[in-house]
Amino acid sequence: MSSELKNDRLIRALLRQSVDMTPVWIMRQAGRYLPEYRATREKAGDFITLCKTPELACEVTLQPLARFALDAAILFSDILTIPDAMGLGLSIVEKQGPQFARPVRSKADIEKLTVPDPETDLRYVMDAVRLIRRELDGSVPLIGFAGSPWTIATYMVEGRSSKEFSLAKGMLYEEPANLHRLLALLAKSITEYLNAQIAAGVQVVMIFDSWGGALAQSSYREFSLDYMQQIIDGLDRDADGNKIPSILFTKGGGLWLDAIATAGSDAIGLDWTMDIGAARRQLKDGVAIQGNLDTAVLYSNPEVIRNEVAKVLASYGAGSGHIFNLGHGIHPGINPDNVAVLVDAVHELSQPYHQ
Amino acid sequence: MSSELKNDRLIRALLRQSVDMTPVWIMRQAGRYLPEYRATREKAGDFITLCKTPELACEVTLQPLARFALDAAILFSDILTIPDAMGLGLSIVEKQGPQFARPVRSKADIEKLTVPDPETDLRYVMDAVRLIRRELDGSVPLIGFAGSPWTIATYMVEGRSSKEFSLAKGMLYEEPANLHRLLALLAKSITEYLNAQIAAGVQVVMIFDSWGGALAQSSYREFSLDYMQQIIDGLDRDADGNKIPSILFTKGGGLWLDAIATAGSDAIGLDWTMDIGAARRQLKDGVAIQGNLDTAVLYSNPEVIRNEVAKVLASYGAGSGHIFNLGHGIHPGINPDNVAVLVDAVHELSQPYHQ
Repeated sequence: MSSELKNDRLIRALLRQSVDMTPVWIMRQAGRYLPEYRATREKAGDFITLCKTPELACEVTLQPLARFALDAAILFSDILTIPDAMGLGLSIVEKQGPQFARPVRSKADIEKLTVPDPETDLRYVMDAVRLIRRELDGSVPLIGFAGSPWTIATYMVEGRSSKEFSLAKGMLYEEPANLHRLLALLAKSITEYLNAQIAAGVQVVMIFDSWGGALAQSSYREFSLDYMQQIIDGLDRDADGNKIPSILFTKGGGLWLDAIATAGSDAIGLDWTMDIGAARRQLKDGVAIQGNLDTAVLYSNPEVIRNEVAKVLASYGAGSGHIFNLGHGIHPGINPDNVAVLVDAVHELSQPYHQ
Repeated sequence: MSSELKNDRLIRALLRQSVDMTPVWIMRQAGRYLPEYRATREKAGDFITLCKTPELACEVTLQPLARFALDAAILFSDILTIPDAMGLGLSIVEKQGPQFARPVRSKADIEKLTVPDPETDLRYVMDAVRLIRRELDGSVPLIGFAGSPWTIATYMVEGRSSKEFSLAKGMLYEEPANLHRLLALLAKSITEYLNAQIAAGVQVVMIFDSWGGALAQSSYREFSLDYMQQIIDGLDRDADGNKIPSILFTKGGGLWLDAIATAGSDAIGLDWTMDIGAARRQLKDGVAIQGNLDTAVLYSNPEVIRNEVAKVLASYGAGSGHIFNLGHGIHPGINPDNVAVLVDAVHELSQPYHQ
């Protein structure tokens, strides 16, 4: 598959094969910081319609690629498409974020849930993937994604965004068997969902474990990592028999890198709280690393951005296996011109590390 | 000083001297989860008046001690008393948290600031300390506290709570000299503030670096830890010439424990994302450790709470140097009866580790 790509830097770096320069993409690169995204979002009327309309999802997926020399596209979607397809009644409330009309609180609630069929219940996602692949025409690879079972479960149990996870963690400590049942169902649903994305054409998959870092050290493996490993173990090859590289990102997971590396992903996403060179040494080059510029650097100016990009590149050092990214998603208030500076700086300043 | 205390477990554990059982207190133990706190808060009218009225601050400080066999009292106050005393115009907006009418954004804003005089500008805090000490009558030690320079600076620059710290980090990356000037002023102010608390009678001091964990690895030492070290270096002894033990807590600082240990505090606070036994081994018993039960355990039931307390105690293992606490402040929705279970479990189950 990667041989058909005009730019296969991302795939090569994920597989730790040599590249001419370090590939770069930006988490949430199709998002509110772009005026053209806000215009399409306006046209859609609301966020959920934007996600569910393949033509519009395709449009916003491609927008950042028209501006910046990015080495990947990432499917525009949301981690809550799966519980929405399970019938929980997703809505996005202004300034409050996602809410579910029917949260999952009891054993009976969990027993009622079934694994969605991706090609029917989530067909709009697969249609978007097919459309984006056609529009990309092999220019760069398309990344598909899903939330982690634990991360999706927090929203399903809480019914909304949370900082304290009182209900989800209450279930973890008091009714762990219920939570395990929910997580197992989600792991199966996510595996089928990602495999449908692969069949539809995504060339890389990423799992976002946004709230894994909120777990206690003693709970992380049991309630988050093990289920992500199940998903990675269950990933299909593409139609040509090629392995689809995977990226696993637990925000706030810096203390657990060694454990994360055992889950079998090709790359580990790193937030900005850890030195990427130290992470590389700790992981003994056994896995590629994606990250990890502090997103807030993009609030500064081109000179500072170039300096901070140079520091991350120097910390990683020579050789392949580095996918440049921010340590977290880009914020809505950032000036898009600064993203251009970042992308160009990565390409220019990384070349000496690949000679 | 500690010889005058009827219960000096906390002081002894902080100094890694032998104890009969592990001391325990709870971050935000005087808080909204207690109905009697909510009643006093109602009587005060608002949070700031509660902080600024020594009799009421004393009342809520003592409330949890009447319910639970805690080994310490902690001054009821707020980390934003210092910028309030600097004239930034603090208010607490319902459901949004603290806001400053006059945030600090420019070099000119910073140059206008001066170090508050604790005994005049913050006299209500010192009066509360004196009153609480009198009421405690030596039953348990009183902990004084302050926010870290970086943590307080984020509120002063943003003008409110933040998740992204776009303005504070923007200053860090683009105008670091301005931020250093602000942090130096805060370090001086906090040192004088804590020394005034010591003169007024606090027997332990704690520095809350609530947002240190949001910094990039490359920034933490320069913009947070170094200034906390200045404060610790500048702490006075008490009137009898005794050293006042100090606790330094960077939430999310688990990756930086070795660096934190160099700042000279007697104890390091640990959140729930790290195994306390692993932290003890890493720190080679060179410092006491406070923590680190996942706060969310208190949403469960007595049996689970006792089991989870037992796990933390077993992980720390035999010997002194452990102050039991949560990994973060207690949440408003927690049942106070579960706190009683926790405190009693710590005392009962820790005794075998101190024989």
